[in-house]
Amino acid sequence: MTRRTPTGAAVLQPTVTQAITEAVLDELAEQGYARLSMEAVAKRAGVGKSALYRRWSSKQEMAISVISEFSMEQVTVPDTGSLRGDLRAALDTLMKWLTHPRFSRIMPDLVAEVARNPELGEAVETLVGMPKRERVAAMFQRAIDRGELPQDTDLELALDLLAAPLYWRLVVRSAEPDPAYMDNLTDALLRSLTNPS
Amino acid sequence: MTRRTPTGAAVLQPTVTQAITEAVLDELAEQGYARLSMEAVAKRAGVGKSALYRRWSSKQEMAISVISEFSMEQVTVPDTGSLRGDLRAALDTLMKWLTHPRFSRIMPDLVAEVARNPELGEAVETLVGMPKRERVAAMFQRAIDRGELPQDTDLELALDLLAAPLYWRLVVRSAEPDPAYMDNLTDALLRSLTNPS
Repeated sequence: MTRRTPTGAAVLQPTVTQAITEAVLDELAEQGYARLSMEAVAKRAGVGKSALYRRWSSKQEMAISVISEFSMEQVTVPDTGSLRGDLRAALDTLMKWLTHPRFSRIMPDLVAEVARNPELGEAVETLVGMPKRERVAAMFQRAIDRGELPQDTDLELALDLLAAPLYWRLVVRSAEPDPAYMDNLTDALLRSLTNPS
Repeated sequence: MTRRTPTGAAVLQPTVTQAITEAVLDELAEQGYARLSMEAVAKRAGVGKSALYRRWSSKQEMAISVISEFSMEQVTVPDTGSLRGDLRAALDTLMKWLTHPRFSRIMPDLVAEVARNPELGEAVETLVGMPKRERVAAMFQRAIDRGELPQDTDLELALDLLAAPLYWRLVVRSAEPDPAYMDNLTDALLRSLTNPS
């Protein structure tokens, strides 16, 4: 029996990819995006820099790719059968994401970096923001299909209203939302989306 | 005629304070909080470091004091006679603050820094967040007094709902809200605050 060794593109070992991914997240959490370097990531992951460049062409591509994958893993879009149930569950998921030990450091740092670097901002929006929003939009679409939301619901606004208050409270104000706050926020969201003025 | 020279505490010249304040804001916008130094501020303002230490005891006290004053200047709390009018005007004011050329860089950087420095976070909340929130709370209180909002309105939640969506959209997502978005957001806020579930 003969085994062919791969030619051309090298095989990317999943265990190496995993080690690099962990190193990128740790470096981002500890050092921030501005001070992130391919050298430090390679050293931390115990691999050569070439292992990084086989996967990504630049620091930006590496960072955004890892952040995108990490943040998509955190997105479990609820399907409880009711809009209220979905909103409450989505807020809980969002809270877990925003208070994740690593991500609670990575996210505000990335936002600050984007204020100085519009190209990075576009990459974040395209590879982190949009895929997340598309998945959560499906939750609102189900509520429209069930007749719980009007057909002409402004999904863009609905997505902002869902994500914004917890980001503001947890990240900008460093204030803990208690369970009563989460319930009241859910009710407020429901009113803002469903009741015609 | 004799003029007494002041003894004890030195007189703080307003023109010097103004020059230092401008220098602090410029340094914060360009370098960020982490790299802010008393030396660089003094040099930029054309004063000695002693002029800074006569006013503030530390870099943190200087930065937060200047940011607090700057951000309070931006807070003009509307009083249009109706809740809808007040909400719309408050959103416009908030948008100006968040898109201010200096502040759009200072604010996300400060939020990122707070994620690493809880003591700074407490100072920001006490000296920047709370005074602003108290002034905007008065706007909601007037709506309660007019009977436009229920007596038991959750002011804490109302303040979060007002500020959060524009921060999320402008700062985190780098997305421009057009006038139609601002109108729809105003209507959504009004529904979330006024209609019982």
